[in-house]
Amino acid sequence: MKKLFVPFCLSLISIGIYGQNLDSIQLRAIYDEVLSNGHCHENLRVLCKEVGNRLSGSANADRAVQWGEALMKSYGFDKVYLQEVIVPRWVRGDREELEILGDKIGFKPEILALGGSVGTEGFIEGKVIEVRSFGELEDMGKEAIEGKIVFYNRPMNPLLINTFHAYGGCVDQRHAGASEAAKYGAIATITRSMTLRNDNIPHTGSMRYAEDAPKIPAVAISTVGAHKLSEALKSDPALNARLNLSCKMEADVVSHNVIGEITGSVHPDKIIAVGGHLDSWDVGEGAHDDGAGVVQSIEVLRIFKSLDNRPKHTLRCILFMNEENGNRGGKTYASLVKSVGEEHIMAFESDRGGFSPRGFSVDGSDEQIQFLKAFESLFEPYNIHVIKKGYGGVDIGPLRDGKICLIGLLPDSQRYFDFHHASTDIWENVNKRELELGAGSMASLIYLVDKYGFNEIPRLNTFKN
Amino acid sequence: MKKLFVPFCLSLISIGIYGQNLDSIQLRAIYDEVLSNGHCHENLRVLCKEVGNRLSGSANADRAVQWGEALMKSYGFDKVYLQEVIVPRWVRGDREELEILGDKIGFKPEILALGGSVGTEGFIEGKVIEVRSFGELEDMGKEAIEGKIVFYNRPMNPLLINTFHAYGGCVDQRHAGASEAAKYGAIATITRSMTLRNDNIPHTGSMRYAEDAPKIPAVAISTVGAHKLSEALKSDPALNARLNLSCKMEADVVSHNVIGEITGSVHPDKIIAVGGHLDSWDVGEGAHDDGAGVVQSIEVLRIFKSLDNRPKHTLRCILFMNEENGNRGGKTYASLVKSVGEEHIMAFESDRGGFSPRGFSVDGSDEQIQFLKAFESLFEPYNIHVIKKGYGGVDIGPLRDGKICLIGLLPDSQRYFDFHHASTDIWENVNKRELELGAGSMASLIYLVDKYGFNEIPRLNTFKN
Repeated sequence: MKKLFVPFCLSLISIGIYGQNLDSIQLRAIYDEVLSNGHCHENLRVLCKEVGNRLSGSANADRAVQWGEALMKSYGFDKVYLQEVIVPRWVRGDREELEILGDKIGFKPEILALGGSVGTEGFIEGKVIEVRSFGELEDMGKEAIEGKIVFYNRPMNPLLINTFHAYGGCVDQRHAGASEAAKYGAIATITRSMTLRNDNIPHTGSMRYAEDAPKIPAVAISTVGAHKLSEALKSDPALNARLNLSCKMEADVVSHNVIGEITGSVHPDKIIAVGGHLDSWDVGEGAHDDGAGVVQSIEVLRIFKSLDNRPKHTLRCILFMNEENGNRGGKTYASLVKSVGEEHIMAFESDRGGFSPRGFSVDGSDEQIQFLKAFESLFEPYNIHVIKKGYGGVDIGPLRDGKICLIGLLPDSQRYFDFHHASTDIWENVNKRELELGAGSMASLIYLVDKYGFNEIPRLNTFKN
Repeated sequence: MKKLFVPFCLSLISIGIYGQNLDSIQLRAIYDEVLSNGHCHENLRVLCKEVGNRLSGSANADRAVQWGEALMKSYGFDKVYLQEVIVPRWVRGDREELEILGDKIGFKPEILALGGSVGTEGFIEGKVIEVRSFGELEDMGKEAIEGKIVFYNRPMNPLLINTFHAYGGCVDQRHAGASEAAKYGAIATITRSMTLRNDNIPHTGSMRYAEDAPKIPAVAISTVGAHKLSEALKSDPALNARLNLSCKMEADVVSHNVIGEITGSVHPDKIIAVGGHLDSWDVGEGAHDDGAGVVQSIEVLRIFKSLDNRPKHTLRCILFMNEENGNRGGKTYASLVKSVGEEHIMAFESDRGGFSPRGFSVDGSDEQIQFLKAFESLFEPYNIHVIKKGYGGVDIGPLRDGKICLIGLLPDSQRYFDFHHASTDIWENVNKRELELGAGSMASLIYLVDKYGFNEIPRLNTFKN
């Protein structure tokens, strides 16, 4: 027995090393494919330049659906199909003007109506009152606020290393600010743009009206504009603002999620999903948000095909519609999954921009996270150092059922809010290699999960790549 | 004895936790200072926009020296002084033209003379011969090359994750290509720009003539231009190129390293040096290369002063002159250090661009690397994950004596060669937060080395920040 033991151990070790070795070779092949033959940067160019921005319900959103379907068909995926989604349709219109009128000062800052805002039906005018929180509104009360235009000016916190945390600490002003102010009789709101840059570029984004308050118009002002307005209020606290907006919400329309699949060779009925959202705001080109995630998700399947790597599980790419103002695509997808009882083992989303990847954010069980952390050393050569518990993504969120593992790509976050929801979110501001490395990282993690499943913790890596 | 043992252990643990806790608080204070009150981005704007590019020996380089000296004096550092450096003076002149003349095709690609190249004294003309390596020249021999213009077209390898490795695999063509070709009788060289982008922007850089070959002119062509020329050669292998360059090397001139110091409270005679290089190429603004390193190095000392943190060792900031085409500043500095017998415990350089920091490259002993790796968990909240053996930097290289620890900041490398030595290396392409996080990371590592010295391995971190 003792004699047998040593060769048996050696053979186990060699299988372990051999297995790791194969994995590191496969990851290298994935990154090589995307870095030398990647399609995602050119696909993003076409989406940004030939389709353009693509707000839900717009003609461009329809064109984006056609583009996504045609592209995935051109790659010869096993199935490519559309999934009907009823989406809201909000239109900006051609009137969008804010004028600051003071005794000593007058200027017209650049603004963008917030997505979902009602218009003004001609000019509305009122005194401006600056606040930094909903608590300040409560302290001031109806008497101070009634008939006025509330100016939310709480900046993003530059001390937070992860800029998404800084965004999370501000976005209430944009999302719920109009209704909170309307409860005290405000007639409109102006919200400081959610960016850490000081510039003249306003950033739009979604807002939502509460049921129990009048619907008042809401706009975003640039950070430089916010500073200027705040300074003007210090020298003339009684200054007026005049607002003219033609935006409006129209009736819901039919749109689509776009889906492509490579059928699994062993578990065709078990799904590994990967996706981003096809819709964008109606300014810029939706390049980082979320053209990047769209082309990276398609690229994952293209890489599998190009390397002749048939997945064990069905690999499904979903281009979700309407993440920005309703998440109807994500909700529709999840409800269809539940209604037919389809099993997903993982859903992966890329919706934090096409920047250098730093890691993966895992919304899963401790066991799933431990499983994924066993791959850490395989990712080290690609400068991927973070595999940790965290949020997955908006579109895949409705799939959450306590079993499925939701994963979000974590790119470097420093530049994301420079471009987010603004006219500067264009293809030229996406670096080809950063985008490709993100796609390679996604394909690599999906390759490993497809190979090993979540059923057993893989051997800890003893083989250094 | 047994009774004493437990409290003794507990007290050791609590000192350890307390120490780590203090360090994590101090690092947080450093990053807070740079992210909320950082000067480096605005300092870089002034250097880029009010001084501009600053090739060694130029009037702008003199102005940069004055700027650096005045800025450090304005911060009230304990000592600010200039160190004389004799530098080469190369001037581009106003004639810089390449024309491709084929039977079917003719075009004038954008070019930049390589730094150090001789001019042409009017037009020179010859057939173009494309190669990818010096080995190809050898295989072809003098007969094939004599009287021709050699076109080096080996691209950077996109498969290498660290773009500096890809650069290292190509730069021989630029640096030694002219003399290698001249040995076989070539009359000029055209070298593909060292970048992974496909665009029309040529990138210059240093070249050096060997003693045993005639000096022939050498230019850089953009990657798109290289592709076009290569295609043109396929359809017309006999096409000619005509070159006209007015660049020339003039006599050496006097310039300066700029030095600022905060005197150490415990070891004033032991130096921790930090620096970047003040000179740049004569195109663009030298923003990433190496304005970023310059303003980050100054920022390190400013942060120490601003936090009222007097270092134990003397903290010295050096703005080196002439890294780009001679490294006379680095060599002069090191030789003066040796001649007066000054002791440096560490020299830190930032010269890889102002991008999101990923870690530190350590050119030191295994013990020094182990010492620094003990701080890994302190850096994790700031997304700094790499502390590994590697190259320090060109300017600090001459200090290498087997004892001093040389360290280079490792920013994300993906975008560096988009801008390197090109007209696009301007202030607008440096992200404020990425630059600031680099400065914060430099100040943090320097804080820890100053506090603990390299004399003992600090306690492994048990306190999670």
